[in-house]
Amino acid sequence: MVFKFRSKSVDEDDFLSYNKNISIFNIKSNSDQMASHSSTLLSSPIFAPFSSHRLHPSPNVSTLRFSRLIRNKPNLALRCSVSIEKEVPETERPFTFLRDSDDATQSSSPTSSVRARFETMIRAAQDSVCEAIEAVEGGPKFKEDVWSRPGGGGGISRVLQDGNVFEKAGVNVSVVYGVMPPEAYRAAKGSSSDQKPGPVPFFAAGVSSVLHPKNPFAPTLHFNYRYFETDAPKDVPGAPRQWWFGGGTDFTPAYIFDEDVKHFHSIQKQACDKFDPSFYPRFKKWCDDYFYIKHRDERRGLGGIFFDDLNDYDQEMLLSFSTECANSVVPAYIPIVEKRKDTEFTEQHKAWQQLRRGRYVEFNLVYDRGTTFGLKTGGRIESILVSLPLSARWEYDHKPEEGTEEWKLLDACINPKEWI
Amino acid sequence: MVFKFRSKSVDEDDFLSYNKNISIFNIKSNSDQMASHSSTLLSSPIFAPFSSHRLHPSPNVSTLRFSRLIRNKPNLALRCSVSIEKEVPETERPFTFLRDSDDATQSSSPTSSVRARFETMIRAAQDSVCEAIEAVEGGPKFKEDVWSRPGGGGGISRVLQDGNVFEKAGVNVSVVYGVMPPEAYRAAKGSSSDQKPGPVPFFAAGVSSVLHPKNPFAPTLHFNYRYFETDAPKDVPGAPRQWWFGGGTDFTPAYIFDEDVKHFHSIQKQACDKFDPSFYPRFKKWCDDYFYIKHRDERRGLGGIFFDDLNDYDQEMLLSFSTECANSVVPAYIPIVEKRKDTEFTEQHKAWQQLRRGRYVEFNLVYDRGTTFGLKTGGRIESILVSLPLSARWEYDHKPEEGTEEWKLLDACINPKEWI
Repeated sequence: MVFKFRSKSVDEDDFLSYNKNISIFNIKSNSDQMASHSSTLLSSPIFAPFSSHRLHPSPNVSTLRFSRLIRNKPNLALRCSVSIEKEVPETERPFTFLRDSDDATQSSSPTSSVRARFETMIRAAQDSVCEAIEAVEGGPKFKEDVWSRPGGGGGISRVLQDGNVFEKAGVNVSVVYGVMPPEAYRAAKGSSSDQKPGPVPFFAAGVSSVLHPKNPFAPTLHFNYRYFETDAPKDVPGAPRQWWFGGGTDFTPAYIFDEDVKHFHSIQKQACDKFDPSFYPRFKKWCDDYFYIKHRDERRGLGGIFFDDLNDYDQEMLLSFSTECANSVVPAYIPIVEKRKDTEFTEQHKAWQQLRRGRYVEFNLVYDRGTTFGLKTGGRIESILVSLPLSARWEYDHKPEEGTEEWKLLDACINPKEWI
Repeated sequence: MVFKFRSKSVDEDDFLSYNKNISIFNIKSNSDQMASHSSTLLSSPIFAPFSSHRLHPSPNVSTLRFSRLIRNKPNLALRCSVSIEKEVPETERPFTFLRDSDDATQSSSPTSSVRARFETMIRAAQDSVCEAIEAVEGGPKFKEDVWSRPGGGGGISRVLQDGNVFEKAGVNVSVVYGVMPPEAYRAAKGSSSDQKPGPVPFFAAGVSSVLHPKNPFAPTLHFNYRYFETDAPKDVPGAPRQWWFGGGTDFTPAYIFDEDVKHFHSIQKQACDKFDPSFYPRFKKWCDDYFYIKHRDERRGLGGIFFDDLNDYDQEMLLSFSTECANSVVPAYIPIVEKRKDTEFTEQHKAWQQLRRGRYVEFNLVYDRGTTFGLKTGGRIESILVSLPLSARWEYDHKPEEGTEEWKLLDACINPKEWI
């Protein structure tokens, strides 16, 4: 991620890259008095406090010193590229990715922290989805990569590639400790208080999955459930801890079977209705709006549910709701795959599926917030891009003939429908 | 493209979307006093001047009135999405896409405008490259789409798909008339004058091509040559007309044949050396730097030449240089394709080519300025995305074994070499 600021207006708040999980690797300056080469800059006295080695042990001091130093250099424009800490491969799954201070030892108890219970939930969801996929595969197994970050957090990536049924199935969990800029905290809090908190530590955890079957009549599935929490800012007395939930489950067929679409949406609605009758219509529309490929004026697929920044309900209720949604993935999806995985198909069916996979790639690389953020901040590339299909296709100016099955799918992507 | 600004700081300069070729289609406001629905806004008195119908005939008046109106509404945050005018299909190639005022009738004369001669050059380059490709194909022909925009400009897209030799070959020319924000004009002029020009009309024309062969031993080629020119700003006496050239030719093999890479780079160097001995080393490095997939820390391919914003040489010299570069495409590339098009290959060779095509897609959708700008401003999608390969592949965590031919290619993409 690149932050730009000018020294004439900088203060502690502007130094957004303050982060225990972040290393500055590239600083450029427009000032003639300073070499523009980043390595020179990083070793120069003014930037020495920001080499990753010195940032880690005492970031507060570094940040303050940085601000003070550049205050004396008006018209010095800085461009800092920051990236999250490099992940370290692990040979075994740890019991938890949480820091010791996060109540990690009692993660299944209803009295333990939401952080701990959310991690337990997403790891259980990863296990149960992978088990169900392996049962459908009948032989091929997921390959697992475990990694951690020295400053806390880590993840488990599981991928099953070129199986009997799935072209590519990825199911990842990750836990991130970071520090957010105060502007983001203020935006999250939704208040216009003039009290300025400093950078605020945050915690984020999520499960994320994309399942691409081989058979063109079996739909692609995506789901993601995540929880985000800040610490209470220490320098603003009384300022609260912030938290929110996000996520969704959506599916992307190349061909429409009405019964499949209805089954999928019904399970989403059932999960929603257990908590609030307004959830399904609201999150169904949110999903149609989010998975929108603007330059094509079409949606990626036939939707499902999607929500983000959700914090205006009881926290325990939303934890239960996310759990219910994650638990609904297998019953919503697996029966459809079982039904369609062996349907006979032609080269034309396969080519159409591949074209729709091309749209999937376009959405993920151009619009998806998680993907574009991950690419820019230096997250684990293979985990981020596991969402891309094994193969995809782009034909010039391809337009399905009106009335064909391909046209029906495209029409439903252009004009989202109410399926139930 | 989306512009955001707040009314308390807006002035004429901030209204970037002023453009004869642009229509405002979506305005959203955060103010409670105004409906947030864009169609309501567009028909409300405050925004009525900005409906596309009224913007076209007298844009200056509209812009000024807009500024005055929103100055009286502090804290009104606006979000304007603007898109360029929709293209209109044409049944025949026009003699020129230039406006009558642009000296279009004598386009081959050395005394005619640079605009006119550049259009003549890129259309000739399109013809000669397409002829050479069709000769290699031995049967299959390019499909042509011609289009224009009511406000001036247009283009010719030619695509040959699933031929004998080429998976997908696209060669496009386009001519654009637009209006640039004054900030961009000032940046281009490279001065810090306090005189503020209003929005400045510009002209841009270019030829752009991506050629993806089927055989994994035949490299992909990309070239693009473009010319950009502003009008002299009318409201700043003495402010000059600005112009610059950009472009390059680069190639992307899946396997390295030293003789091919040397041949390709030698032809680029020959073209450069005819004009300035500093051009090849400078533009070769620029190419390596530009076609960089940051999240992979690797280049898209084995480079070539690339330059942008070039205006610090004689204009006639740069026109000749661009012409020479465009004329070098056929001798640099066609002999390599002829030599490799029938080489026997295995499924593994093809899979590796497809993985490299995946990287091509990543670069084009995430980093390429022309592509990302085109997607955001609503250019002709099929022309913009013709650069994508017919098919591409993403394998999880694929790493070629050290010492293999695949590894050698990857190594050369990570560590660019001097080939001649």
